[in-house]
Amino acid sequence: MNIAIIGLGLIGGSLAISLKENGFAKKIIGVDISSENIDKAYRRRLIDEDMNLNLAIQHSDIIIIATPVDTIQKLLPQILDQVDEQIVIDVGSTKKQLIDTIKNHTNRKNYVATHPMAGTEYSGPEAAIPNLFDHKCCVICDPEDSSTIALQKTEKLFHSIPMNIIYLDAHSHDIHTAYVSHISHISSFALALTVLEKEKNENRIFELASGGFSSTVRLAKSSPQMWVPIFKQNRNNVLDVLDEHIHQLTRFKDLLIQQDYKSFFQLIEKSNEIKKIIQ
Amino acid sequence: MNIAIIGLGLIGGSLAISLKENGFAKKIIGVDISSENIDKAYRRRLIDEDMNLNLAIQHSDIIIIATPVDTIQKLLPQILDQVDEQIVIDVGSTKKQLIDTIKNHTNRKNYVATHPMAGTEYSGPEAAIPNLFDHKCCVICDPEDSSTIALQKTEKLFHSIPMNIIYLDAHSHDIHTAYVSHISHISSFALALTVLEKEKNENRIFELASGGFSSTVRLAKSSPQMWVPIFKQNRNNVLDVLDEHIHQLTRFKDLLIQQDYKSFFQLIEKSNEIKKIIQ
Repeated sequence: MNIAIIGLGLIGGSLAISLKENGFAKKIIGVDISSENIDKAYRRRLIDEDMNLNLAIQHSDIIIIATPVDTIQKLLPQILDQVDEQIVIDVGSTKKQLIDTIKNHTNRKNYVATHPMAGTEYSGPEAAIPNLFDHKCCVICDPEDSSTIALQKTEKLFHSIPMNIIYLDAHSHDIHTAYVSHISHISSFALALTVLEKEKNENRIFELASGGFSSTVRLAKSSPQMWVPIFKQNRNNVLDVLDEHIHQLTRFKDLLIQQDYKSFFQLIEKSNEIKKIIQ
Repeated sequence: MNIAIIGLGLIGGSLAISLKENGFAKKIIGVDISSENIDKAYRRRLIDEDMNLNLAIQHSDIIIIATPVDTIQKLLPQILDQVDEQIVIDVGSTKKQLIDTIKNHTNRKNYVATHPMAGTEYSGPEAAIPNLFDHKCCVICDPEDSSTIALQKTEKLFHSIPMNIIYLDAHSHDIHTAYVSHISHISSFALALTVLEKEKNENRIFELASGGFSSTVRLAKSSPQMWVPIFKQNRNNVLDVLDEHIHQLTRFKDLLIQQDYKSFFQLIEKSNEIKKIIQ
């Protein structure tokens, strides 16, 4: 099976490693508008060949779009215009707006909307790592709108990694990812700014930063090129969650002002229930 | 050297492991008001003997207080009342209020205020682990108020682990830990509540939670018994930081409302500067 990967960053590059390593892909064809990324991808041995987009479409059985989500939205209709038997998969973090763009496309059934949920705070071909997706969750959205064969091949692809597949409608996907992924990033960005603002004249202080701080702030290293289009496409859901998060922080603040440590204790106890959910 | 450790939780227990393993302590004497903790500490082989507080003070060369900070504030004057040559070290996360409590005590010079900056989100003797403190930072506060011999022995103890020692006045310590530790915990507690609130009827959704979410929310497993007294003693600094953090989140929110993605991009780029500071 020849697989074209469009966008050779953290996600595209890591998929390239997994699918070549496990034998699912006979050939990985890399597509990237940055010649520097193509060079890096060859040096990291992520790809077997590089082609321009149109050639890659012709020579592939499966086309995976792994660019930032604003670019996915531009490329997806163009790619569907050119496919015959090929299957097109996107791996972006937002789904509703994207799917709406191509819902009436003649080749809609060749397309499968997916979101393999794994990542790190790093980006580019140099951030690609083996095993990034192993045993993580991959969401397939609106599976009923893809053809049976497109869906089956996509499931086979993600099971080969192996990933656990769950099915959601696009609307639910976007709400839930706002809660379990997008808000964590905004929280980290804001926390980094809070500390950078305060400590700008105090270099020594970062000697004090221990594991807890690094853990909550590491996502603040994430790329704005990737994340701004996500927040833009999922704006309404992200705004809802952000409102709720600011509300929760304000509860802690008000209890501190009132010196109501009993209620403060109870709030922390309640938040401890997250233990049941994350390991 | 006989070392008494008062409070056999994550911090006290982990210090017990390190100081016994590296030979600094000949004997570890455990003190804890919970007989269950004493039992667990014996079963985990954290301690050689257990004693009540008064006996432990008599039989030790160094007494380490590793209880929640409200209990440290109660115990420290009582312990200083009873010491002769013994050195008393506390390892609490807040310092100004505690040090003020005993600043005129006759035996002030026997006491060294420290904060070994390491931890996990778990608590109790079962959370004690080897190597927790290795190569981390230990703050010694107001070293000029301790006797030379007390200071030297304390430095030797922390160097034996080995930890890197830095010196700060108590006031600066409390400001900086509000930024690099305390706010991270409140942010995680609030994030956990945000998600628990929303997703209470949607169990499936946590299948989606990936590494980024776990990373920002893991501190929400932390014990309220430990943390409420910290927020209480460091209330004013924590309120300042919390205000700033809510302000930063509100900037992101306002830019989303205005759909000003250019400024949103610039804010994320600015927060990326945290890269220079954490690895």
